Amino acid sequence: MKKVLILNGPNLNMLGIREKNVYGVETLQDIAQKVSEEANIIGIDFDFMQSNHEGEIIDKIHGARGVYDVLIINPGAYTHYSYAIRDAIKAVEIPAIEIHLSNIHSREEFRSKSVIAPVCVGQICGFGSKSYILGLHAAKLL
Amino acid sequence: MKKVLILNGPNLNMLGIREKNVYGVETLQDIAQKVSEEANIIGIDFDFMQSNHEGEIIDKIHGARGVYDVLIINPGAYTHYSYAIRDAIKAVEIPAIEIHLSNIHSREEFRSKSVIAPVCVGQICGFGSKSYILGLHAAKLL
Amino acid sequence: MKKVLILNGPNLNMLGIREKNVYGVETLQDIAQKVSEEANIIGIDFDFMQSNHEGEIIDKIHGARGVYDVLIINPGAYTHYSYAIRDAIKAVEIPAIEIHLSNIHSREEFRSKSVIAPVCVGQICGFGSKSYILGLHAAKLL
Amino acid sequence: MKKVLILNGPNLNMLGIREKNVYGVETLQDIAQKVSEEANIIGIDFDFMQSNHEGEIIDKIHGARGVYDVLIINPGAYTHYSYAIRDAIKAVEIPAIEIHLSNIHSREEFRSKSVIAPVCVGQICGFGSKSYILGLHAAKLL
Amino acid sequence: MKKVLILNGPNLNMLGIREKNVYGVETLQDIAQKVSEEANIIGIDFDFMQSNHEGEIIDKIHGARGVYDVLIINPGAYTHYSYAIRDAIKAVEIPAIEIHLSNIHSREEFRSKSVIAPVCVGQICGFGSKSYILGLHAAKLL
Amino acid sequence: MKKVLILNGPNLNMLGIREKNVYGVETLQDIAQKVSEEANIIGIDFDFMQSNHEGEIIDKIHGARGVYDVLIINPGAYTHYSYAIRDAIKAVEIPAIEIHLSNIHSREEFRSKSVIAPVCVGQICGFGSKSYILGLHAAKLL
Amino acid sequence: MKKVLILNGPNLNMLGIREKNVYGVETLQDIAQKVSEEANIIGIDFDFMQSNHEGEIIDKIHGARGVYDVLIINPGAYTHYSYAIRDAIKAVEIPAIEIHLSNIHSREEFRSKSVIAPVCVGQICGFGSKSYILGLHAAKLL
Amino acid sequence: MKKVLILNGPNLNMLGIREKNVYGVETLQDIAQKVSEEANIIGIDFDFMQSNHEGEIIDKIHGARGVYDVLIINPGAYTHYSYAIRDAIKAVEIPAIEIHLSNIHSREEFRSKSVIAPVCVGQICGFGSKSYILGLHAAKLL
Amino acid sequence: MKKVLILNGPNLNMLGIREKNVYGVETLQDIAQKVSEEANIIGIDFDFMQSNHEGEIIDKIHGARGVYDVLIINPGAYTHYSYAIRDAIKAVEIPAIEIHLSNIHSREEFRSKSVIAPVCVGQICGFGSKSYILGLHAAKLL
Amino acid sequence: MKKVLILNGPNLNMLGIREKNVYGVETLQDIAQKVSEEANIIGIDFDFMQSNHEGEIIDKIHGARGVYDVLIINPGAYTHYSYAIRDAIKAVEIPAIEIHLSNIHSREEFRSKSVIAPVCVGQICGFGSKSYILGLHAAKLL
Amino acid sequence: MKKVLILNGPNLNMLGIREKNVYGVETLQDIAQKVSEEANIIGIDFDFMQSNHEGEIIDKIHGARGVYDVLIINPGAYTHYSYAIRDAIKAVEIPAIEIHLSNIHSREEFRSKSVIAPVCVGQICGFGSKSYILGLHAAKLL
Amino acid sequence: MKKVLILNGPNLNMLGIREKNVYGVETLQDIAQKVSEEANIIGIDFDFMQSNHEGEIIDKIHGARGVYDVLIINPGAYTHYSYAIRDAIKAVEIPAIEIHLSNIHSREEFRSKSVIAPVCVGQICGFGSKSYILGLHAAKLL
Repeated sequence: MKKVLILNGPNLNMLGIREKNVYGVETLQDIAQKVSEEANIIGIDFDFMQSNHEGEIIDKIHGARGVYDVLIINPGAYTHYSYAIRDAIKAVEIPAIEIHLSNIHSREEFRSKSVIAPVCVGQICGFGSKSYILGLHAAKLL
Repeated sequence: MKKVLILNGPNLNMLGIREKNVYGVETLQDIAQKVSEEANIIGIDFDFMQSNHEGEIIDKIHGARGVYDVLIINPGAYTHYSYAIRDAIKAVEIPAIEIHLSNIHSREEFRSKSVIAPVCVGQICGFGSKSYILGLHAAKLL
Repeated sequence: MKKVLILNGPNLNMLGIREKNVYGVETLQDIAQKVSEEANIIGIDFDFMQSNHEGEIIDKIHGARGVYDVLIINPGAYTHYSYAIRDAIKAVEIPAIEIHLSNIHSREEFRSKSVIAPVCVGQICGFGSKSYILGLHAAKLL
Repeated sequence: MKKVLILNGPNLNMLGIREKNVYGVETLQDIAQKVSEEANIIGIDFDFMQSNHEGEIIDKIHGARGVYDVLIINPGAYTHYSYAIRDAIKAVEIPAIEIHLSNIHSREEFRSKSVIAPVCVGQICGFGSKSYILGLHAAKLL
Repeated sequence: MKKVLILNGPNLNMLGIREKNVYGVETLQDIAQKVSEEANIIGIDFDFMQSNHEGEIIDKIHGARGVYDVLIINPGAYTHYSYAIRDAIKAVEIPAIEIHLSNIHSREEFRSKSVIAPVCVGQICGFGSKSYILGLHAAKLL
Repeated sequence: MKKVLILNGPNLNMLGIREKNVYGVETLQDIAQKVSEEANIIGIDFDFMQSNHEGEIIDKIHGARGVYDVLIINPGAYTHYSYAIRDAIKAVEIPAIEIHLSNIHSREEFRSKSVIAPVCVGQICGFGSKSYILGLHAAKLL
Repeated sequence: MKKVLILNGPNLNMLGIREKNVYGVETLQDIAQKVSEEANIIGIDFDFMQSNHEGEIIDKIHGARGVYDVLIINPGAYTHYSYAIRDAIKAVEIPAIEIHLSNIHSREEFRSKSVIAPVCVGQICGFGSKSYILGLHAAKLL
Repeated sequence: MKKVLILNGPNLNMLGIREKNVYGVETLQDIAQKVSEEANIIGIDFDFMQSNHEGEIIDKIHGARGVYDVLIINPGAYTHYSYAIRDAIKAVEIPAIEIHLSNIHSREEFRSKSVIAPVCVGQICGFGSKSYILGLHAAKLL
Repeated sequence: MKKVLILNGPNLNMLGIREKNVYGVETLQDIAQKVSEEANIIGIDFDFMQSNHEGEIIDKIHGARGVYDVLIINPGAYTHYSYAIRDAIKAVEIPAIEIHLSNIHSREEFRSKSVIAPVCVGQICGFGSKSYILGLHAAKLL
Repeated sequence: MKKVLILNGPNLNMLGIREKNVYGVETLQDIAQKVSEEANIIGIDFDFMQSNHEGEIIDKIHGARGVYDVLIINPGAYTHYSYAIRDAIKAVEIPAIEIHLSNIHSREEFRSKSVIAPVCVGQICGFGSKSYILGLHAAKLL
Repeated sequence: MKKVLILNGPNLNMLGIREKNVYGVETLQDIAQKVSEEANIIGIDFDFMQSNHEGEIIDKIHGARGVYDVLIINPGAYTHYSYAIRDAIKAVEIPAIEIHLSNIHSREEFRSKSVIAPVCVGQICGFGSKSYILGLHAAKLL
Repeated sequence: MKKVLILNGPNLNMLGIREKNVYGVETLQDIAQKVSEEANIIGIDFDFMQSNHEGEIIDKIHGARGVYDVLIINPGAYTHYSYAIRDAIKAVEIPAIEIHLSNIHSREEFRSKSVIAPVCVGQICGFGSKSYILGLHAAKLL
């Protein structure tokens, strides 16, 4: 069975609390629950983590080597400048999928630029918590 | 049953013939076949079209109004400059999903900019023909 | 009596249907009707056309040579990138007037730039369907 | 009867004297006379002023509040940098129409950018002194 | 007792009248009154002036030399382009404090750039009329 | 004998009519005639087409696959923005030669940038109708 | 009594040690002491923290929710690129005030750009340690 | 005898007072005196004026028409943004010479750009008060 | 018989030695030989020179005045910054043809910009040593 | 004996594992060993550390004050945006040398920009693990 | 008596021959003669040189050290990119005056930027051959 | 024994004479002497040359082919614009090391950009004359 690591970046622990008009009322736990249900159906084994620390995210990506088959990452605001996370993904050579809750192309200008996307297999954004479900399907299809 | 229009832009009729190292060996007909199989499974009614003509694509988007529930569009190179297609999607007010075979963020600079994404629900790219399958799932989930 | 060709670019056939808060509830037919009434009063002979196809618009501009005295054009989204339409207007050497329903200078950044205006006599924008009436007056005054 | 204030910015008092190949041989007085004749015909009550002083133009815009129904402004070179005039127009909340004698989009690069247009209803440019007549018509139509 | 000159730039005389959702309902006279009360409490002697004229503001800055200990300036829209006011402040060598009612960093792009701030001691913005009170405290603390 | 397809983009049908000071008095038919004479001499079999429609040009490029040995293209104004034509040329993998009547490097800034040149063998510009003759020689020499 | 959290970003623990010509000889402890004295006078209850860790600052901002009424933040060098801190401030919906010791507008170019200011109520900079006192007054006035 | 108008822009009345390390200790009166002496020697009739008001400078340039043979202008900070002064100079068609005390090319970036120089005969800068003497010689030589 | 000067800029003497994958195995002597053969056939008298020295290239262009009918120049890397060579070509008023071995539009970004092309009749690039033959034909056709 | 702190930034712990074609097969331990041997020969006392945490790197730089004579830093991806590390280096006033394994000037555009280099004595890059040996020599020579 | 070196850059030897509408009919020898006459009158000892070679100009500037009191340089097209000449002038520490025949601010965009002006005392441009006379006067006045 | 060519570009012959605060008091001969001593110790055979002429530097690089094992180059100001020297280094395929006396990243903006570094093995800057010694070590280590 495929093993997937789902990494959530800064402020995603505030989901369901902050800016509900943009991100909806679901908490990250609600999403984890939904992901769990879908994973059971399509047969995926996954871990689900969140951190606000850039360094911690890098450590986790490093630690994923030899353990996980696919990386699904929602890098939050690090999307736009963390070349360190980019390098980490490139270093571990696990196929990665970048996901976002909101459509990063229809918000503030700076959000449409991802420094991480170039080292990923692909990017899925704009489907709310369903971006996670689509990411799971994508991981399955790889 | 949800009705989905899948629109394919310029040069996609050359798929499986041109630049196979970038786009794979599948033809557009192969993809339509795969989409059809998946659509049957998840219960989606769809039409599948291709055109090299910007104006024709706009006409088809207009015609989709009141007929289809979701629009899945792979705008090909029009992605990068057709503000006219963008306006057409915005005008018909059908939720649209932008898809791409390749990861447009890891190729030439000009390909990472989409003028169409800001009026779509979301964007899926980089999974080869599986981007179409994921687009179908996304349409289902909307 | 002066002969005027009024050309409408992509998506203007959706007028009165799409984004009513930006463009109002009038359809393009309503506008043609209003233009007709005003043309009768001030003595202008006109034709009124719409196309979503860039090439078709170019063909029509070419065909206008020796037939019409003035060209009134609402290029829609082609305003912002169609150097081909620009060249067509320059080629036929009929005085042209660029019009827009909305004030293109107070919307998204990309809309404030017209690649077509430099080869026109002048530009009128922001007065809704009245931009057409003012364009007619301008054609009369030329 | 609608009351309109027509404001002319810097160097427009030199009209008919300076650069006749660009601006024609009419003086600002000739234009005022033509405007007066048209205003009589279509029933508009108007005042016509010119100043080279940015502050004075702002003062006059402020003074227009509660006195005039429409503001027609040819801001001259202030078009390109006077955010102070822009703020003045926004503050008095009288609908404003920006006009120019020449087609500002077909001259030096810096002239195609207006910092004032975004707070106006619309913009009319390129018809010589007839831009004033069209502005009057537009004021009537508002 | 410290003597402070409070200078107000273009359109600030419209305060309490224009755009109340951005600037509040207080008039400039209300603010002067509040400043007066606070100045009495903390022991500051001040003058309070407003002008829409760039040249007049420069004249007043020049006149401040040898008369005032601190200059508090709300340059209004001149903030964004008046290198002449910038030079005037630098010339008189009186410590200056730039203040703004609104948070200039969270509005239109052009408002976040101040050409005057580099020659001031500091900048205070975003606290409504309280920016004046804070400016007074800052003048006291210098 | 080598088979060459000569494709002419938008407005080239107006040649000899429009802007004679820039493009000369020859019509596109005159050029086709000259090309025919030279082709006979140096032994080239060719077809000569023109279209104002972007999509039609793409269709013709696709159709050239397996039929022609070399593609000579004068993309007109599409030179500067048609990534779709660029992709079409790349897709069919026929060596292409970009030609222009005028020297695109000594005209308006926007004309010096070709989005099509990067996928061609080379570019020839500035020799009037002789650019076609030189293009023919180049096709012969490939 | 209002509760205020004063957050200090990277390198501020080096205050009084590093670059004394820019930041003065006071240590962060000296400033905390001064803030404490002023807080007693004007009746503010506050906590004062410093961290070099971007993630830790985000955690503290999150933790401030429901505990503090106002956030005063000197983000140090994170000012210029930490979109993650920006999102954290926006998420907790506590009014925030950005302060800086030096006038960020009169130093290196990159320092005049704050990615955090747009989500704050306002910004105070340039008054040395007195920026903290002014920030306290601003918090009181909110 | 040639008649020359020497116009001095904003803040030049502060000369000899402000920033002596940049501009020297001479006052504008000292310079007028030196100019007077040199004018006597080389036979030039001149007037010497200063204003901080953009509009007043424009008025004076207009008034120079038919009265003066040459215009020498030190536009101060208006050099960098007053397109209105630029238009005024172009309108009166008197040959103009732009002068500066300091070398505008070796100071802040924004000072090296003159919007006025393009409509002048030439520019002289960097020779302190001697720039005026050289301007006088240049006027003589024209 | 037409006399042509063929000028080769820096590093072209290394041809056939350096980067053979980009420039082919022919030496500059091989090219001169080929050019000689073609020149004999089509009746052109030519000289062929190479220099790594910018000043020397300028000297030779000057010396060409009154001696040669056409100048063919491959400016090497000077293409991208030598405004001095550009001025030299413009000064001697001999029609010039810019040629390049490689397609300068499909390599590094900086190579697609030629500061010399604007003063030439036209540009030929991308045909390897055949660019020289085509340049010869172009010279013949001028 | 001189004391040197060698700091390694994010992902350098992955050396010898990730992207071997760029960075070689040596691990960071291998490099530390080589550095140790060379340090013995030339008489340098050193410590060698690595961290993925931006905050931890800053802490270590702070802690170096009064303990080490020279700082050698390979900031990894932080090179390109960590103004916080830059400030830390500037704060402790220990001479610093920036080193990189690869030639940052011949890779992706963003890697050629270092925000840290301006506060270092110098920069050494491109020599693989020998960049560390050269850094050691440089520290010795300071 | 002051000793002055007048250095003329590339293409100035073509003066009076090339582009007479821009540069006039005088040759460089004519100018040298005029300079000689004026130098006799005002008492300046001068040498006059021209070279198309950047390196030679640098050599001559180096050789000027200890021999000449002032350097007058018309760097021709090297004005716009020769940082090497700039460094040479800075190195010899002889006051330098940059002159130009034409007004470099009213021609092509690239000509308005001088990389040499920042290391000169001042710049004189636009007075034709009289720029040399004015440069001589400036040298006298230094 | 390894043979190294050390090339010095424009103005380096002025070392020890010009701008001693930036470059120190050593002459280029002093440096050559130091290099000689170090070369003896570590066993390197070297030649040491200087030229102000771009073309001469290119000639010397070409001549180095087959004679030297490593090229050490201090290109002086040519660093910032000589694409011709860049091409020369690339052509001869000798490993090259770019060195600078000063830290080019902490001076004027234009000095931080090297067009030559991308074709070198690496870059060493900021260590004064010791940059040459480090370059020698680097050559040894290659």
